[in-house]
Amino acid sequence: MYNYRLDMVYDGSKYSGWQRLKDNDKTIQGKIEQVLSRFYSQAVEIVGSGRTDAGVHARGQVANFWTGQETDPKVLLAYLNHYLPEDIVIQKIQLVDERFHARFQAKEKNYNYYIRRGIIGNPFQRKYEYQIEAPLNIQAMEQAASYLIGKHDFTSFTTAKSKKKSMERTIHSIVFKESEDLLAICFKGDGFLYNMIRIIVGTLIEVGLGNLEPEAILGILESKTRANAGPLAPAQGLFLEYVAY
Amino acid sequence: MYNYRLDMVYDGSKYSGWQRLKDNDKTIQGKIEQVLSRFYSQAVEIVGSGRTDAGVHARGQVANFWTGQETDPKVLLAYLNHYLPEDIVIQKIQLVDERFHARFQAKEKNYNYYIRRGIIGNPFQRKYEYQIEAPLNIQAMEQAASYLIGKHDFTSFTTAKSKKKSMERTIHSIVFKESEDLLAICFKGDGFLYNMIRIIVGTLIEVGLGNLEPEAILGILESKTRANAGPLAPAQGLFLEYVAY
Repeated sequence: MYNYRLDMVYDGSKYSGWQRLKDNDKTIQGKIEQVLSRFYSQAVEIVGSGRTDAGVHARGQVANFWTGQETDPKVLLAYLNHYLPEDIVIQKIQLVDERFHARFQAKEKNYNYYIRRGIIGNPFQRKYEYQIEAPLNIQAMEQAASYLIGKHDFTSFTTAKSKKKSMERTIHSIVFKESEDLLAICFKGDGFLYNMIRIIVGTLIEVGLGNLEPEAILGILESKTRANAGPLAPAQGLFLEYVAY
Repeated sequence: MYNYRLDMVYDGSKYSGWQRLKDNDKTIQGKIEQVLSRFYSQAVEIVGSGRTDAGVHARGQVANFWTGQETDPKVLLAYLNHYLPEDIVIQKIQLVDERFHARFQAKEKNYNYYIRRGIIGNPFQRKYEYQIEAPLNIQAMEQAASYLIGKHDFTSFTTAKSKKKSMERTIHSIVFKESEDLLAICFKGDGFLYNMIRIIVGTLIEVGLGNLEPEAILGILESKTRANAGPLAPAQGLFLEYVAY
């Protein structure tokens, strides 16, 4: 078997997310599998590093698939980019070790959430950032974020329903980067639960607006109750930037 | 009278262009005038530095308007950005000399045309650049462009119909900037005719693709015949970057 790794970029605005759904071809995975299956004249399934929610973007999503057919990566790259919608772009295709698995072997994920501050929007980026007109206290947000670093049960910060799976995740870092009116909140961790980053961002924004004390994060974490955390921040500001293997 | 200058940025994708049209509110000018007229509770007309065509973007459009009512620029800025659609953003409002006129006093205009080269698109920029998969000979394009510098009759490079108005314009420079897979063709001139930059770009692309010799530009210029020039390049790649006064 040949195992090919795909590195890709997509604008998630119009999609129901990464994961293929029955009777719904508005998923990134579904779109790519459709074109791959046409290329190989047989059903091809791909494994993504993880799911991105509806409306979330990716600059560094990784997937792989196995096929019995040896393929010229250049030929496949041109084919995929020709037939995929223009909001999904494959940047690189490479033959990898047969044991490479995009999900199981992902060591760290990097997500950035982009916030445009103030009343002056950027019309060209408006679908890729969340604009907040009111002033934000970044120092308070950084303090609040610091309580989330490390290994925790993030039940309060997810809308995942399953009670069986572990809600423990390790956040390696949350870094705030400011440049002019743009704030990027950069997350690194071993993995993130469903909606976890967006709920964390929604909660940090409440802190930034002064509606919540930074220390309140500790109680929210402990309570293991979603209702205690802040609102879900909009999907449009979130990017899967990079997956480390 | 008070004279206010507006500096603005817009994504032209959804608009019929800058200039207000009867029975059509899908123009940038029309949208801004609507909100200004509501603010002042009376009809307000604005003067733009020039028209941008349907689908063309601006990062540095300038306009002005006169009013008898003294206005706090900060209050008006917040009002405009609140009520304008999010693809039109006013970046600055300032009180200027009563004689300032955005069109008559424009000394130089800067337009950039963005071309993405190769098969790897950028999904986040796809509405702001024109992707060309085939290789381009940039040196040949630069040579062809050099023949257009200076004062010329640009009849061959416009679809303007009026025979009365002068078709002479002066191009100060055409500079090619390459970074990774992006090519920006940067135009500076005293003004540009209807569709002029897009027809020049369409013709330069023909040269870049090897369909036209660089020297052919000279004959096209002299012929004063639109049909001899290349096709109209798509609007989406064009930005009005800056207007100098």
